[in-house]
Amino acid sequence: MTDVLNSAVTLIEVAPRDGFQSVVDFIPTEEKLTLIKALVHSGLTHIEVGSFVSPKAIAQMADITEILLALEVDSTFEKSVLVPNQRGAVMAAAHDCQRLNFVFSASETHNLNNVNKRLEQSLDELKAVQQVIAQNQQLSLRVSLATTFDCPFEGSVDPDHSIRLVQQVLDICPSAQIALCDTTGRAHPFAVRKLFDRALQLVAADSLVFHCHDTYGLAIANVAAAYQAGVRYFDTAVAGFGGCPFAPGASGNVATEDVVYFFESAGIRTNIDSNKLKQAIALAECINGAQLGGSIRHINSH
Amino acid sequence: MTDVLNSAVTLIEVAPRDGFQSVVDFIPTEEKLTLIKALVHSGLTHIEVGSFVSPKAIAQMADITEILLALEVDSTFEKSVLVPNQRGAVMAAAHDCQRLNFVFSASETHNLNNVNKRLEQSLDELKAVQQVIAQNQQLSLRVSLATTFDCPFEGSVDPDHSIRLVQQVLDICPSAQIALCDTTGRAHPFAVRKLFDRALQLVAADSLVFHCHDTYGLAIANVAAAYQAGVRYFDTAVAGFGGCPFAPGASGNVATEDVVYFFESAGIRTNIDSNKLKQAIALAECINGAQLGGSIRHINSH
Repeated sequence: MTDVLNSAVTLIEVAPRDGFQSVVDFIPTEEKLTLIKALVHSGLTHIEVGSFVSPKAIAQMADITEILLALEVDSTFEKSVLVPNQRGAVMAAAHDCQRLNFVFSASETHNLNNVNKRLEQSLDELKAVQQVIAQNQQLSLRVSLATTFDCPFEGSVDPDHSIRLVQQVLDICPSAQIALCDTTGRAHPFAVRKLFDRALQLVAADSLVFHCHDTYGLAIANVAAAYQAGVRYFDTAVAGFGGCPFAPGASGNVATEDVVYFFESAGIRTNIDSNKLKQAIALAECINGAQLGGSIRHINSH
Repeated sequence: MTDVLNSAVTLIEVAPRDGFQSVVDFIPTEEKLTLIKALVHSGLTHIEVGSFVSPKAIAQMADITEILLALEVDSTFEKSVLVPNQRGAVMAAAHDCQRLNFVFSASETHNLNNVNKRLEQSLDELKAVQQVIAQNQQLSLRVSLATTFDCPFEGSVDPDHSIRLVQQVLDICPSAQIALCDTTGRAHPFAVRKLFDRALQLVAADSLVFHCHDTYGLAIANVAAAYQAGVRYFDTAVAGFGGCPFAPGASGNVATEDVVYFFESAGIRTNIDSNKLKQAIALAECINGAQLGGSIRHINSH
């Protein structure tokens, strides 16, 4: 796969979900929509706009139906929503979105802590979500596997285990997009390269995503390693929106602008306009309580 | 060279020169020495402790002879000093240091701006410095080629030009250590890999150094790329000390602790004690006017 250098990449913007949900105070719906529209304006074609979770669990996502309704007129980008279960999937299917993102963890302990399910239960829930997909031709599925490299409770995750899980997911939903997530930011580029080399033997490049965090400053090195393996889809969050849940002040999601800068500087097209992206960065910086990160937004243009 | 994964690396600490010189107010000599000693204590075996430049040019380096005198008793690490010319080399040779670091730029424009010489004049000066080395058996030479990838004035630097310059340097001083420097931080990992693949055909791995800046968040990706090419020596600065001269608040030198974290997480030994390094980081953070950077020092241990 190393002969595909210089082919374009697609960034999947996750700030409106993964970023917003880290903010304690409710962000007014209009403010959310303004940022989402700025992201679309900068050229982003894939945006995770929220989630269908219980407002009791995550109050920040309570306006997801209003968000989708307001964005209905704009068909220029793929709207995805996170769904924690079949119930969320059914609700999402009733609204204008193109992809459901079902998340669980490769690490048993993290899965129990995060979604209160054992791995087998999560795989059963995935089957139930897949039923919703099967009944809605316009919907696609994404499965995000958290902690595929490293777990905050268990440490390093066995690559054999992660690859087995990818196969189990494929057995349930062969056409799903699959995201391998470095949730803690502790994966190193040699491990990233190895796991994606293996994953790409099971999953086509146009169905595989790398979701990474920059907590330890390794994100761009890991993105480069995944790219070299053949990965072409990357989750990013404008302004590094999201923070790090276990280290206040530290970087969370890899910043969209950092990934754009990296790829474009290497001659790899992202089709994102860096100047227009600055408007989205400025909007993110105005959101009260936003935990931001990233490298290049601190640099004045010169 | 990709089969040499897992072999150890050596970090060359440059904060006491490249970092200190970015501080406007004079740092008391004792404070400098305390930080240098903490760096040695953490396991660093190669430290650039200052430079023999005119105090009129860089007042911060005016105490270099006192620094070397105070460190004379400690022979556990290689002390290198920057010398801008033969005059500096002669002065350095009279003191206890093991390596002279002669710096000039691959970019003609940057060289004129930085050391007020054309490339040919710098190569002549190198010959003069080499004469000093030849007369002092205990001294080794390092040549640092700034802007080997990218120049703030000229943009991308032609790799053929940089490689020709490496050969010209080798013709003058075949046993010199050579550092290729990404001065602006704009090199991308694929370019780094390619240039070092070529450089390693001319220079042995134990005589080649990568000096990089994290201004655009690419440093660790570039370090990983250089490592994969076979590079085993890396310049780093504790706490990212140094800042970025053309973007206040932005990261400068890649942080020692970030490079240690990256290599150690990948199972590659640095022989540096991360916990002891924290003392050096804390000392750097106490220096008035220090421009710091880096990723992991912001993270609480957990």
